[in-house]
Amino acid sequence: MSHSICQHLLFFALPLTAAMLVGLCDGGKVLVVPMEGSHWVNMNFLIRVLHERGHAVTVLRSSKSWYVKEESTNYRSITISMSEGLNEDFAHPIIQRLIDAQRSNSSMLNFMGLHAEMFRAMVKAHQIMCDMVTNMFEDKALLKTLNESQFDLILTDPCIGTGIILAHYLRLPLVYNVRWITSGEGHLAIAPSPLSYIPMTGLGFSDKMTFVERTKNVLFYLFNELHHWLKLKPQYQAICDRYLHPNVDFYELLQAADIWLMRVDFVFEFPRPMMPNMIYIGGFQCMPPKPLPKDLQQFVESSGDHGVIIMSLGTFVKELPADMTDEIAAAFAQLPQKVIWRHTSHRPPSLGNNTLLVDWMPQNDLLGHPKVKLFVAHGGTNSIQEAMYHGVPVMGLPLYSDQYDNLVRLQERGAGKILSINVVDRTSFLQTLKKVLHEPSYRANMQRLSRLHRDQPVKPLDRALFWIEFVMRHKGAGHLRTESFRLPWYSYYSVDVVLVVLTVLFTLVLIVVAVVRKSRGAEV
Amino acid sequence: MSHSICQHLLFFALPLTAAMLVGLCDGGKVLVVPMEGSHWVNMNFLIRVLHERGHAVTVLRSSKSWYVKEESTNYRSITISMSEGLNEDFAHPIIQRLIDAQRSNSSMLNFMGLHAEMFRAMVKAHQIMCDMVTNMFEDKALLKTLNESQFDLILTDPCIGTGIILAHYLRLPLVYNVRWITSGEGHLAIAPSPLSYIPMTGLGFSDKMTFVERTKNVLFYLFNELHHWLKLKPQYQAICDRYLHPNVDFYELLQAADIWLMRVDFVFEFPRPMMPNMIYIGGFQCMPPKPLPKDLQQFVESSGDHGVIIMSLGTFVKELPADMTDEIAAAFAQLPQKVIWRHTSHRPPSLGNNTLLVDWMPQNDLLGHPKVKLFVAHGGTNSIQEAMYHGVPVMGLPLYSDQYDNLVRLQERGAGKILSINVVDRTSFLQTLKKVLHEPSYRANMQRLSRLHRDQPVKPLDRALFWIEFVMRHKGAGHLRTESFRLPWYSYYSVDVVLVVLTVLFTLVLIVVAVVRKSRGAEV
Repeated sequence: MSHSICQHLLFFALPLTAAMLVGLCDGGKVLVVPMEGSHWVNMNFLIRVLHERGHAVTVLRSSKSWYVKEESTNYRSITISMSEGLNEDFAHPIIQRLIDAQRSNSSMLNFMGLHAEMFRAMVKAHQIMCDMVTNMFEDKALLKTLNESQFDLILTDPCIGTGIILAHYLRLPLVYNVRWITSGEGHLAIAPSPLSYIPMTGLGFSDKMTFVERTKNVLFYLFNELHHWLKLKPQYQAICDRYLHPNVDFYELLQAADIWLMRVDFVFEFPRPMMPNMIYIGGFQCMPPKPLPKDLQQFVESSGDHGVIIMSLGTFVKELPADMTDEIAAAFAQLPQKVIWRHTSHRPPSLGNNTLLVDWMPQNDLLGHPKVKLFVAHGGTNSIQEAMYHGVPVMGLPLYSDQYDNLVRLQERGAGKILSINVVDRTSFLQTLKKVLHEPSYRANMQRLSRLHRDQPVKPLDRALFWIEFVMRHKGAGHLRTESFRLPWYSYYSVDVVLVVLTVLFTLVLIVVAVVRKSRGAEV
Repeated sequence: MSHSICQHLLFFALPLTAAMLVGLCDGGKVLVVPMEGSHWVNMNFLIRVLHERGHAVTVLRSSKSWYVKEESTNYRSITISMSEGLNEDFAHPIIQRLIDAQRSNSSMLNFMGLHAEMFRAMVKAHQIMCDMVTNMFEDKALLKTLNESQFDLILTDPCIGTGIILAHYLRLPLVYNVRWITSGEGHLAIAPSPLSYIPMTGLGFSDKMTFVERTKNVLFYLFNELHHWLKLKPQYQAICDRYLHPNVDFYELLQAADIWLMRVDFVFEFPRPMMPNMIYIGGFQCMPPKPLPKDLQQFVESSGDHGVIIMSLGTFVKELPADMTDEIAAAFAQLPQKVIWRHTSHRPPSLGNNTLLVDWMPQNDLLGHPKVKLFVAHGGTNSIQEAMYHGVPVMGLPLYSDQYDNLVRLQERGAGKILSINVVDRTSFLQTLKKVLHEPSYRANMQRLSRLHRDQPVKPLDRALFWIEFVMRHKGAGHLRTESFRLPWYSYYSVDVVLVVLTVLFTLVLIVVAVVRKSRGAEV
């Protein structure tokens, strides 16, 4: 069958129907409680599209916000007065320490140092978010405004608890734009996640693990849960106890959301159990490329048949250690390709003529340009999904958080290669670049992922909009949500049933033995 | 928000895009291995639509087939010569015995009798299907034809194993049109199914169970598994051992299908874990009503404001016991409504003037008629989905198999009421009829289910077609399927990991205790 034409027609035809609806639906009122940084980048994209579809969006932000601007043509904002925020001052020292920990050579110490650092940062970040909730509940005028606004739903990123608690307080349906919850990857909260083939984020395992890897996976899960129940959950629970009903359990509020818009799909993520109220919107922000700015277009065109390499390390990372930057620049200088490198600090002395340093790049448009042959990326979810959408193979330079795990997903499919930052020098960097550039399998595999990702009955963005509006139309989506999370764990796992059945069986055996002994005694 | 217009537009607008594709895709070659009876009714519907979209469909049938005709405008057929078939002679005595067992008064005996009967019937049915596979493998000319036909995929109903084994033999991608597998409900094979909130079919429980119900659920699950592994699986395994590679495990073949088109949705089914390759197509056969035949239309119109009740007990059941039929007719006779009753045997003496007996009825068109107020149904999946689609409340008269469980799903949502056939007399029947007719909540709840069911981003039928064609385009859908079913059970459940970790911990404790004792001994 030759399907390439109809495949593209289907993918690009269906969104029309969503466009047809613009103006047909009365606008709803959406309250957005966002997270900072790269999370905001994709939430802001959703907000813009909601606004274009006629919904009135209100964003709840902190006065110390880093990315969430007070004014926008797409939303109006409500600001909570704060003394601290999840901003540059908070994030950059942490990221620097994480990168330093990564570069340490002892792998076990490295791993433990990294996670100790991550856990400390999480406790601090959640404390700031809890302060935000407290300030909100103490501000009676603000509460009055929120109460009187008659929102149709709350859209939030559940990696922080603010929106979750607010939805319960305002009795509003709750939709998540989610990749992480307060305690880890999103699925862990409501979908069964057998640890035998579902690797915990942070370990860099695939869905096919050795016995030793499976053991590490179980132990890391237990450690993570312990940290959540001892350190993170109590922070939010204290707020629930104080401002909501004393019987309200924070984790149950988190689990009770109507719709989970998951920022992955199963071309990127390993297949795993899901729940009916989980909607996969991975790559919803990806778009066909727009033309490049003139100077960039000229630079790209000048690359001839060799093509272009682009490098960007995401929203957060402003600079790598100077020695590493220098090695990378020296490696790039040896290539016949042109290089566009998002690099904002000092100009490395070893920089070649083929390399253009930029403060910012139109990443999506570059990835969609046919001359771009390779993407050197840190492995954030947004970037990986964009690379997949455009079919550009990735050389991964993971720095912290889920980046290594994300890149493993590409490497496992033969669509990318990881270089650990503790072994980066000009030789290793150049070698890895050349491998991904010259072995055709990397590009072929990435193009295959791109075809699979694009071949869906509905575009991810339209799916996201449909379900947000579904929740507005039906005032929730309770029919898609199990109430099983309300069961105590021993009932959920049928431990109580098994114990009672075993006890009954054991008692029966004892009785039979006793009777047999007695009758034998009588015979004797 | 007033969404009723856009909701309907969205639901009816999206299918256009699928229609737009007709003629754009080259036709594929689909081999269908169907099941008999009501299963064939919905498979035949899919076949017709595949044919209309330009695919060439071949149906593999038994020479003793009941429903699957040799000739059709929608498919060509390949017939396997058989001495026995899953036909009327096979089914009717079983159904009669099941109905008799249902009417027995002792509930425990009733339950055990029913299931013993069901299990016996299943062993016999699978034996006939295994004979069909044997006859196929022994017919070298037929094998040659199948091998040379270059099909793109096999579409089968995995409640029988024929198509599963054939797909492995021909190395073809495999798509299921599924509600049951050889051992039970479809999800049980690949989706985690916590028995604490997922009721086994046959028990009539909801997803909220008491401790005693949960215990019964676990025990029934174990019994069912035992029956499967001891009785059913060995039948098919023997065929695999003989005609495929000796290391091929039948149950793994069953689990390895590319796409599972599940004949339910989560308006009908209780929410539960699912897998990425499960696509929900419940109600795919439902259509807006066509005009009724003239005589039926006149009869329906003559009902005035009272409206019409329709009664049908599905594909299989030709007659109920005469005494029961008489009681039902007497109950109907006391109502001001008109009644259309699909009833093919003797005319009950108590039949009223308001009741029309028919051999067959255009069920979908009647359910879509605004005068139809109530549907007396046995509770087959097809009928329930059609009643839901059209928003007509149901009075359920479950006879056997999953019918009671299906009706429980309506009753739990307040959209229907069950009357057990062992308590049917004119009084109880009339009382239940009047309750569902006159309490407005039944209709309101069913209309709500109908709205939820219709409010989907893609119509179930288009979803089915999309994924069948997806498998043709990409020669499978391996990226949506976990390979976790290949793990041994003790690895899947991490039992090996837990045992090793506990052993290590226990040894450490022993060593510490020994050292402490020794040092104390030294002190003394």
